[in-house]
Amino acid sequence: MPLTKAREMMEEALKLARAAVDVGEVPVGAIVVRDGAIIGRGANRPIGNHDPTAHAEIVAMREAASYLGNDRLTDCDLWVTLEPCAMCAGAIAHARIARLYYGADDPKGGAVAHGPRLFEQPTVHHRPEIYAGIAADEATELLKTFFAQRR
Amino acid sequence: MPLTKAREMMEEALKLARAAVDVGEVPVGAIVVRDGAIIGRGANRPIGNHDPTAHAEIVAMREAASYLGNDRLTDCDLWVTLEPCAMCAGAIAHARIARLYYGADDPKGGAVAHGPRLFEQPTVHHRPEIYAGIAADEATELLKTFFAQRR
Repeated sequence: MPLTKAREMMEEALKLARAAVDVGEVPVGAIVVRDGAIIGRGANRPIGNHDPTAHAEIVAMREAASYLGNDRLTDCDLWVTLEPCAMCAGAIAHARIARLYYGADDPKGGAVAHGPRLFEQPTVHHRPEIYAGIAADEATELLKTFFAQRR
Repeated sequence: MPLTKAREMMEEALKLARAAVDVGEVPVGAIVVRDGAIIGRGANRPIGNHDPTAHAEIVAMREAASYLGNDRLTDCDLWVTLEPCAMCAGAIAHARIARLYYGADDPKGGAVAHGPRLFEQPTVHHRPEIYAGIAADEATELLKTFFAQRR
């Protein structure tokens, strides 16, 4: 995929991340894409939804699975502005996501390239293709601004 | 907690696991308990709910968080018939569950005493007290019977 096309796709996830800021949630956004169409959208909403599992990836994957009427998102791609945590990486494996595209690295909470590196674990059931660092500058800036304003 | 009392509590989760069998789902059940009262119940339902995240623990924690109107389940205990996977262990950390009681070990999919051992990772945000092996014989028997019947 050309880089400009990848940034365009990630822009859809970034829009959702910006919407999270507006309601005081950590700005992370995600989309699920199948055959070029967005079939799931998620913005980070644990506080507002009273749901510890309502990370952007989980919200987007639940919506996509509901739309497809299938708990498996085979042939679907997940685009998310931040490196997924262990909960989300585990859900990505359960959902059989084909390709994972993410933006900023998360050395503290990430579980793909950091911490438990879940997809490198010998017991993982499924490993998507992984593409990191897409529009990472914008995703990082959004997070930095958000946390700076809350201090 | 005396062992008989612990088995009584786990029996509530086992009832939910047995209900999962009846609808063709892998038999795992979970409850969230606060001050001795059950405030969340979950049976494993990914296939029926078209939701890759609908493990017993996630369903029970989402119900409890909705009931409390809070994404944090501080002072709550989670009882589950099987060792949690990475997704569920991650959610347990996000929810700030105080005590985790589980039944059977899961060497293939578990992420507490096996695989990534999530709560032993230096980057984990929260680590509950962990009590394993409660009514493990019954939980294991239920799973064995289920998988034997599907072969």
